[in-house]
Amino acid sequence: MEKEELHEEALGKLNIKGANVSPAVIKRLPRYFRYLRELIRNGRMRISSGELSELMHVTASQIRQDLNCFGGFGQQGYGYNVNYLYAKVCEILGVGEGFSAIVIGAGNLGRALVRNPMFEKRGVDIVAMFDVSPEVIGRTVADIPVLAMDQLESFCRERKVDMAVLTCPKENALEAAEQLVTLGIKGIWNFTGKELDHLAPHTVVENVHIGDSLMTLCYEMRALEEKDDQK
Amino acid sequence: MEKEELHEEALGKLNIKGANVSPAVIKRLPRYFRYLRELIRNGRMRISSGELSELMHVTASQIRQDLNCFGGFGQQGYGYNVNYLYAKVCEILGVGEGFSAIVIGAGNLGRALVRNPMFEKRGVDIVAMFDVSPEVIGRTVADIPVLAMDQLESFCRERKVDMAVLTCPKENALEAAEQLVTLGIKGIWNFTGKELDHLAPHTVVENVHIGDSLMTLCYEMRALEEKDDQK
Repeated sequence: MEKEELHEEALGKLNIKGANVSPAVIKRLPRYFRYLRELIRNGRMRISSGELSELMHVTASQIRQDLNCFGGFGQQGYGYNVNYLYAKVCEILGVGEGFSAIVIGAGNLGRALVRNPMFEKRGVDIVAMFDVSPEVIGRTVADIPVLAMDQLESFCRERKVDMAVLTCPKENALEAAEQLVTLGIKGIWNFTGKELDHLAPHTVVENVHIGDSLMTLCYEMRALEEKDDQK
Repeated sequence: MEKEELHEEALGKLNIKGANVSPAVIKRLPRYFRYLRELIRNGRMRISSGELSELMHVTASQIRQDLNCFGGFGQQGYGYNVNYLYAKVCEILGVGEGFSAIVIGAGNLGRALVRNPMFEKRGVDIVAMFDVSPEVIGRTVADIPVLAMDQLESFCRERKVDMAVLTCPKENALEAAEQLVTLGIKGIWNFTGKELDHLAPHTVVENVHIGDSLMTLCYEMRALEEKDDQK
């Protein structure tokens, strides 16, 4: 509780909205978020760039450079204030903006996602799931109701919905996304494998390609094999 | 069929193993893989860097730079050979190495993953799933048998298993990973949220943090809101 209050207090004092933070740093911030969160959970108040560097397997100079971008200046021999940094990262990334989300598709992936604590940790509130299958409509998953796809329009008109998590089959992805844009959804988190770039000017799309990460793993496994073979 | 043969033929002629390709290019290759795959599916044989640039929303000079790294030289007015590029990307990334994989955890995420065609598309063969719950042990998911966790050791000793997809609860992740290392698993695709970096010198770990992508989306949604507010 006390830690949460510290976080709230720190957040209240901040007003820079990440305007001067480069896209490259923004990309690295979710990782800082995770490590800083873990440090707070473990009761740490201060950390040096050297220690953070060792923990995150990033050079200390990279860390100093990243954190200085948003005024997280560490003091020599004293280190960084963990709560301040965490609050700053949260603020820049928009954690705690109170976004509400719906999930399109209540299959295995949709169900796995709503059960994952990441939404809650990042301040995103899932309010409903939508599916076309009569087998799942009317049920709940982790207390989230599964509604019929033809209720989507009225639901979004009645309630404020900011974000949609798209887990429907690839062949239905474009149609669903276009409907979501029409309904004023501002962000689509797209797991369908269908590229949805440049869908609409006022809707942000984040395409997740899990398979890309599988390929990176295959590449690294092969590279390791070759290295071992050369020995 | 014919396209597959073309791909096989092209692969046979290659012998560079990506030794001279920079890590930055390697990171971008899975995206080329997806787009080139789609082009082949649509029967395209050649493409110019300009057209590929438009399709992928990357500058043409970036594309030329990336593809020239591994000898994918396009000819002026003629463009790139799509099959050759695809085969080259596959080869560098280790697609078609014939890796076999097991999935630890047959919950929603594990089930969603084995049903995803990405493994087949990338030449990774899932041979079994493992779980501790009597409710799922003995069942099959997409024709993959779900075995008990205490069968893991004998299974891995009897069969060649290269890779493990870790979808068990976070609190069991480290123990499971250490067992997998002992059993000679060379690659762990880690969805547990537990950081498993530097686990063992001969096991590669690819940590998937889906939440990082959610944060990027939140950031971009907030940035768009601010831009709109300023108008």
